[in-house]
Amino acid sequence: MADTTAPAPPLLISGGDVVNADQTFRADVLCVDGVIAAVGLDLDVPEGTQVVDATGLLVMPGGVDTHTHCRLPFMSTVAIDDFETGTRGALCGGTTSIIDFVIPSPGQSILAAFDQWQEWAADAQCDFGFHVAITWWSDQVEEEMGILTRERGVASFKHFLAYKGALMLDDEALYNSFTRAKELGALCTVHAENGEMVYRGQMKMLEAGITGPEGHPWSRPVECEAEATDRALRTGEFINTPVYIVHVSCKEAMDVVARAKAAGQVCYAEVLAGHATIDDSVYFQEDKRAAMHYVMSPPFRPAGNPDALINALAAGVADTTATDNCTFCTEQKSMGADDFTKIPNGTAGIEDRMSVLFDRMVVQGAIDVNKFVAVTSTNAARIFNMYPRKGVIAVGSDADICVMDPNAKRVISVNTHHVKVDFNPWEGREVTGVPAFTVCAGRLVWKAVIADGVADWAAGEFSGVKGSGRYIERPCFGLPFETVPVTDKLREKQPIQRAE
Amino acid sequence: MADTTAPAPPLLISGGDVVNADQTFRADVLCVDGVIAAVGLDLDVPEGTQVVDATGLLVMPGGVDTHTHCRLPFMSTVAIDDFETGTRGALCGGTTSIIDFVIPSPGQSILAAFDQWQEWAADAQCDFGFHVAITWWSDQVEEEMGILTRERGVASFKHFLAYKGALMLDDEALYNSFTRAKELGALCTVHAENGEMVYRGQMKMLEAGITGPEGHPWSRPVECEAEATDRALRTGEFINTPVYIVHVSCKEAMDVVARAKAAGQVCYAEVLAGHATIDDSVYFQEDKRAAMHYVMSPPFRPAGNPDALINALAAGVADTTATDNCTFCTEQKSMGADDFTKIPNGTAGIEDRMSVLFDRMVVQGAIDVNKFVAVTSTNAARIFNMYPRKGVIAVGSDADICVMDPNAKRVISVNTHHVKVDFNPWEGREVTGVPAFTVCAGRLVWKAVIADGVADWAAGEFSGVKGSGRYIERPCFGLPFETVPVTDKLREKQPIQRAE
Amino acid sequence: MADTTAPAPPLLISGGDVVNADQTFRADVLCVDGVIAAVGLDLDVPEGTQVVDATGLLVMPGGVDTHTHCRLPFMSTVAIDDFETGTRGALCGGTTSIIDFVIPSPGQSILAAFDQWQEWAADAQCDFGFHVAITWWSDQVEEEMGILTRERGVASFKHFLAYKGALMLDDEALYNSFTRAKELGALCTVHAENGEMVYRGQMKMLEAGITGPEGHPWSRPVECEAEATDRALRTGEFINTPVYIVHVSCKEAMDVVARAKAAGQVCYAEVLAGHATIDDSVYFQEDKRAAMHYVMSPPFRPAGNPDALINALAAGVADTTATDNCTFCTEQKSMGADDFTKIPNGTAGIEDRMSVLFDRMVVQGAIDVNKFVAVTSTNAARIFNMYPRKGVIAVGSDADICVMDPNAKRVISVNTHHVKVDFNPWEGREVTGVPAFTVCAGRLVWKAVIADGVADWAAGEFSGVKGSGRYIERPCFGLPFETVPVTDKLREKQPIQRAE
Amino acid sequence: MADTTAPAPPLLISGGDVVNADQTFRADVLCVDGVIAAVGLDLDVPEGTQVVDATGLLVMPGGVDTHTHCRLPFMSTVAIDDFETGTRGALCGGTTSIIDFVIPSPGQSILAAFDQWQEWAADAQCDFGFHVAITWWSDQVEEEMGILTRERGVASFKHFLAYKGALMLDDEALYNSFTRAKELGALCTVHAENGEMVYRGQMKMLEAGITGPEGHPWSRPVECEAEATDRALRTGEFINTPVYIVHVSCKEAMDVVARAKAAGQVCYAEVLAGHATIDDSVYFQEDKRAAMHYVMSPPFRPAGNPDALINALAAGVADTTATDNCTFCTEQKSMGADDFTKIPNGTAGIEDRMSVLFDRMVVQGAIDVNKFVAVTSTNAARIFNMYPRKGVIAVGSDADICVMDPNAKRVISVNTHHVKVDFNPWEGREVTGVPAFTVCAGRLVWKAVIADGVADWAAGEFSGVKGSGRYIERPCFGLPFETVPVTDKLREKQPIQRAE
Repeated sequence: MADTTAPAPPLLISGGDVVNADQTFRADVLCVDGVIAAVGLDLDVPEGTQVVDATGLLVMPGGVDTHTHCRLPFMSTVAIDDFETGTRGALCGGTTSIIDFVIPSPGQSILAAFDQWQEWAADAQCDFGFHVAITWWSDQVEEEMGILTRERGVASFKHFLAYKGALMLDDEALYNSFTRAKELGALCTVHAENGEMVYRGQMKMLEAGITGPEGHPWSRPVECEAEATDRALRTGEFINTPVYIVHVSCKEAMDVVARAKAAGQVCYAEVLAGHATIDDSVYFQEDKRAAMHYVMSPPFRPAGNPDALINALAAGVADTTATDNCTFCTEQKSMGADDFTKIPNGTAGIEDRMSVLFDRMVVQGAIDVNKFVAVTSTNAARIFNMYPRKGVIAVGSDADICVMDPNAKRVISVNTHHVKVDFNPWEGREVTGVPAFTVCAGRLVWKAVIADGVADWAAGEFSGVKGSGRYIERPCFGLPFETVPVTDKLREKQPIQRAE
Repeated sequence: MADTTAPAPPLLISGGDVVNADQTFRADVLCVDGVIAAVGLDLDVPEGTQVVDATGLLVMPGGVDTHTHCRLPFMSTVAIDDFETGTRGALCGGTTSIIDFVIPSPGQSILAAFDQWQEWAADAQCDFGFHVAITWWSDQVEEEMGILTRERGVASFKHFLAYKGALMLDDEALYNSFTRAKELGALCTVHAENGEMVYRGQMKMLEAGITGPEGHPWSRPVECEAEATDRALRTGEFINTPVYIVHVSCKEAMDVVARAKAAGQVCYAEVLAGHATIDDSVYFQEDKRAAMHYVMSPPFRPAGNPDALINALAAGVADTTATDNCTFCTEQKSMGADDFTKIPNGTAGIEDRMSVLFDRMVVQGAIDVNKFVAVTSTNAARIFNMYPRKGVIAVGSDADICVMDPNAKRVISVNTHHVKVDFNPWEGREVTGVPAFTVCAGRLVWKAVIADGVADWAAGEFSGVKGSGRYIERPCFGLPFETVPVTDKLREKQPIQRAE
Repeated sequence: MADTTAPAPPLLISGGDVVNADQTFRADVLCVDGVIAAVGLDLDVPEGTQVVDATGLLVMPGGVDTHTHCRLPFMSTVAIDDFETGTRGALCGGTTSIIDFVIPSPGQSILAAFDQWQEWAADAQCDFGFHVAITWWSDQVEEEMGILTRERGVASFKHFLAYKGALMLDDEALYNSFTRAKELGALCTVHAENGEMVYRGQMKMLEAGITGPEGHPWSRPVECEAEATDRALRTGEFINTPVYIVHVSCKEAMDVVARAKAAGQVCYAEVLAGHATIDDSVYFQEDKRAAMHYVMSPPFRPAGNPDALINALAAGVADTTATDNCTFCTEQKSMGADDFTKIPNGTAGIEDRMSVLFDRMVVQGAIDVNKFVAVTSTNAARIFNMYPRKGVIAVGSDADICVMDPNAKRVISVNTHHVKVDFNPWEGREVTGVPAFTVCAGRLVWKAVIADGVADWAAGEFSGVKGSGRYIERPCFGLPFETVPVTDKLREKQPIQRAE
Repeated sequence: MADTTAPAPPLLISGGDVVNADQTFRADVLCVDGVIAAVGLDLDVPEGTQVVDATGLLVMPGGVDTHTHCRLPFMSTVAIDDFETGTRGALCGGTTSIIDFVIPSPGQSILAAFDQWQEWAADAQCDFGFHVAITWWSDQVEEEMGILTRERGVASFKHFLAYKGALMLDDEALYNSFTRAKELGALCTVHAENGEMVYRGQMKMLEAGITGPEGHPWSRPVECEAEATDRALRTGEFINTPVYIVHVSCKEAMDVVARAKAAGQVCYAEVLAGHATIDDSVYFQEDKRAAMHYVMSPPFRPAGNPDALINALAAGVADTTATDNCTFCTEQKSMGADDFTKIPNGTAGIEDRMSVLFDRMVVQGAIDVNKFVAVTSTNAARIFNMYPRKGVIAVGSDADICVMDPNAKRVISVNTHHVKVDFNPWEGREVTGVPAFTVCAGRLVWKAVIADGVADWAAGEFSGVKGSGRYIERPCFGLPFETVPVTDKLREKQPIQRAE
């Protein structure tokens, strides 16, 4: 392993096509001291500059995964991939920033939870931000939301409408938190599944003797998600504050987002690489171990839904892509072998998102490469206020870069992936579009081995630096010319003047 | 006044066009002992038969108003029109059946409340049924729902999603009641406004110094209703039980119903005559007294919405029409003169629904007369299981008949109406379509005075009989060949067979 | 065979449940001289009355198939089932009325074509009506439309937007015909596929070397139908005349209908039993002979679409069901063995519609039995102005009755069906819901043999009478209280008064 | 007037906030030799550099108006504003590029027409491109489309579905042109109104004695546009080529675009500043002269539609804004004083688009400033392949810049505008958002006079250079990584392998 404490030398990515969200152009990219120092042809290059040959490759802003759960304590266990191994997978796969979640227990100081997560994240190998979940309500929570936004760089809060009796918020708490977030200029994100329905569905399944993983999707059909999506968006509409729906998994819920957007509401939808490429047949396979590994929430959906998500991304109805990476090994999953409600929820994805989506969207013709950059990086950076530090190849931006080989293929497998978990949801899938190099903070941290157009994924060289990832402080949205989505309907009302 | 205790003599309605929901045909209608004894031409008529000349008129099933609140105790006062005066208005206007609401206080026995309402209804002059509101949840409520359906002829329950801190149900209670109703074969009806939003909207208005009636519509914009409509329908979809949304007032909410119906869900929407013909400009008039009189929930909506409701009725997206008749005099309304949240909610309508809708829908060309009968009578009778006793001109059906003059006009006014309240929401409106005669239980109870095509409304003869109205026992839906709306998605799931 | 020239004796259907569109009730039905003479319990029955025991069975109005092509000359051949064998199948399957199509060649007198079809229909065993297709435009066509409506009992015209170079109308001719039909009070029906796209799609397929039956669905994807559906409905909206879309086959097109209905437009959609229960996988089977037999237009659609059609019927977005029965034997189909564009279009269905839909819709829980009657009989009778002669069990109506056994099963097969064609699109499908008896014009013409709940379809007794079917004269819609769908937007405009 | 032949000196815009579509940042902008030479703080500035103080102002890419008709010969006259005066208005209003239309007569060589338009455009004061209309079809047209794209820098073609008997294309010609455009990589644009309906509607109006300007909107209601929009988009979907709908004017048509986008289709919608801010009440005013001036197609639409267009832009359902600037003086308009069908169609707008939309969208809170740049400049530049030369403030881009004062106000009036026509559609409207400076090709061509936050529009200094505008050659879309919108459904089909 290289001496990771030494500063990285200047790095030149030469000969590639730079792909940003707005355009593609032929240019070299020079990285110095962790930032992009120059973009162009015939650049003056310092001595000692390391050169990466990107001829025939696409030089894109590194991916931003807006939804990860590294080493999350959940359902009596802890996610197996932590910030070290999770970000290792990210970097190999071309993702250079993640936004993870601080999830306080109800009753816990959200500030204390934030500090705890910061400690856990100290091992990260790429930059990271935090959404903070609001799982209960009190004056203390309200006050600490202020501290987090003003002093800790938190610009987004998460709200669960599922997980009754645990993380779920009722209408009143949701209203309180949205109102407070609006006041602070922070973005409200929502896990949209109706917790009451989910709980009842689970009880129905168990009562019917359905204890296997097939009970998971059956207990929380699409109407659970559509209802909660509508509730979240309507609440945002009423309060007049933007809302971001995480992991929209089905056409029914996406239709709700489309309806809101068409009416002029400012809202956003996130799509997981998994939901967009895998359907619910995985739960009904003979192999129960595999079926359990796919248990996550929202579940994988019936055929047709993945294509609907792709269309939504192409259409701009959905904005970002993520993974909800939250990994549990077979032993952990087996806690729910006799009761699907006890299977720890979550799957892998952080390493494979960029390839899987490049294959499905660009190679199969749903979008062009600029739109690919938009939905894997730029939109996320803009929505979560990390732009232009992240999300674009431009002078002054962080030197976080994914150099994609658009023609190379690789086969995804648990045997070759770089995360720790013992299962890969795309096992055996061949994809076209391979991250040939990843640059993180100006340092070349991943180099794939590609021969005859096929990558030997296990043979790739990873040279990331544990602990080198920095926390991304994100300011809230503010004046002047902030995103004021729609005229505040209630604020501006004036009493009617009547002669009494 | 006639001797109202004597049995009514046979009555022949001769020379008119009988209009049912399915067809129009020339026929005389003979009523004997309160039921329709014959329909046809050249009927054998008993001696002593009273004859009504319906030449040139439409002989339609009497209207069914599915939503009234006679003498409702509400917001610290009591609705001024009781079962006597409310049904008097109904009969003059061609409506011969009402379904009123038993509204128990949270904590109160729903059976006791039912008995209380029966007592109040003893004065009714036309037949009536009851929906019973579920305003809280307990084992007792669950048990009494069974008694009401099996022993008291209640086939529908009402659920409020508005009125936080009073009648509002949370997700859990709603789920419980829907589930119980399904078990019993009863229909779930819902007042769909988001109670949290409404409460917050009211607080915002008052904080902004908006205390007048204009604060009422501003505090509960269409998104409040659309959200709650979606919540109710999705809950019905998940549980797989039909849902009936009362007083859908706006396009946003009706779109939710249309979406559900198009997906094959069994659900129904009710439209109020007021919402379909009056817009929210009434709140912004100089005359504060008038503005206060229009305070009801949901409120009258911005221009465009009334037409959308008419279209929904024409299209079959909406099914029934009603009034939410709940009247308060100016003195009562004035309780909220300085704070719109204290204005007792409700307006008149029971007397004018048939005329107002005939004018707006038939005369203006939105629908034909058969569809008019469907949306004012037949659909309601079918949905609430009173058909064919009510809702059709057919041998054996109750002799409840509205003989409509389709060409006559009248001007609506508080000065001539037959209800007690001192305000009429359509004051001064000229409508085409006048109930020339009303027959209730075979008795001629209303005779309009029409000259030169114009009715002198005040001059009409009313001869209804206080206390003659009978309670309509409505059985629940049952086997065989019940309305099983959609395959029960959860019930039929079978565990996957796996070799362990 | 019975002496079919003798008048049928009175017939009593006893012990069954009468099922109409509006209600179900226990009653006997007495048929005398071809009409229903009495409906009730304990009826006075003439001597010599034949009695059918309907205990445990459903006594429904006979089916109305709104879309058949008996002995149609088409694509250089003639449909193998003519009016004799086609109506034989209809009667065995519980359908007692059909509406067939007169299809003049472009340039031909539509009156002459009508006479030709009447001649062919002389063999019909059940009553029949005719839609007349407008395949070209001239003053003569315009005039003959008047004669057909006023003197020949034609109340509906058909318009093809497909079949470029043959039957297809351009915008101008479509506008002319719709305008004329409106003037006459006749209903416009439309075959909605974009003829230009279809033609180009066919050429593309052949150029790509795709000559097999799979080229058929690939050449005319759903957008062809959705476009033409929208064009037809918008034209009707602009002219302000009702439009009936025949054989809506896919969700994309049905969404167009739903949009129009929700906006208050008067329009109707017809669904074929085949499209509602069979998907496009039939084209991709190994057995090319079978694949060719499924070639019809619009084609069977991708999975998901059949369920969408069922939902549309349940929701009232679609109104009627039919078959487009137009049968060609294998030898005829083989004309297109090397070029799918030469395969005569059409499949069977007339015999199996009632069973297939009862099974899919009632047994599987999408609708109740009343709605089943509505979508198989009553709605058609009302829309095409044959009601209440057809479409209802009522005194005075034609004694056309389907007595359905809701619990019996049968297996559909070419080996047992009663039509002539050598293929059945539901081959091998077991359905629940068997027409136990069919009564046509008061005569018992079909008696199924059912043992242990299973019908031996081939063993059933058919005793229809060739040539006994009567032409159903259908008046156009007229005053007073006609269906005036929406206010005529253009008619009522008045010039603005301006001082010049 | 300055010596306009001399090269412009370097120009520094200092102290402003640069606003691009993706971000806002504080920077100075240096323009040298017509291009942007530097963007940043503390720039090295050549001697002799002219400095513009943009403190407190927004430095945005100059507007791109995608839809103008300078000196168009139309309806027996010629638009009064030619390329000199039209672009003068554009520059004063902050628009620095236009795309005008070459409109060949049916039968005319499209190449010859292109040359004619180039000649007319020689006077332009800002850069311009051309869409070329396909108004007829022949082998010659097909060939010349190739020449225009390959040799003349035309990357988009226009298709009229309106103007029956003149410019209108039928289905076949439309299909031919779309297919050819796809082959060439050119974008298809469509004027979407159903020409048959419009023609019939006009005849109906005249027959009804309605000859005034109110006949214009009544003769072509929204269904005309919705139908044609659907036809164009479905044709694009079938052929699999992107489609751009010009001047979408109403909710009905925009809903069609939204539907297509949500399904993943690549398509675009353009909104006119006029349609987004003016409703159809203008036709019904007393002043007939004014009413005639508003005659354009599609017409201004009923209230509610303008807001729907704004929402569509905010939501990304609509992409670009334009004006359809096509001006006729009162004398010209009066040709149709007695027959609205003879009023030359068209209104002004080129000068006021930026202000009107800034006021309506940014000031009133529908969007932020970045989105404003997107919908007034960047999106147009990207869609029409002029990016990054146009549409962005970046080094190397053309120095076409609008420096907007976001707080200043001005009142729009014919008395102060800089175009030639004698009417302004926003007469008297006060807007917030004034183009303080316009830079064109690096030259300061417009300087507003603003005092106390109010602009004296007539006093502004215009120093544009007649004939300095350059033709913008636009390449077609091509490999590698072209926009391949969706998988070509038909291209990839393979015959089924069957054993014969």
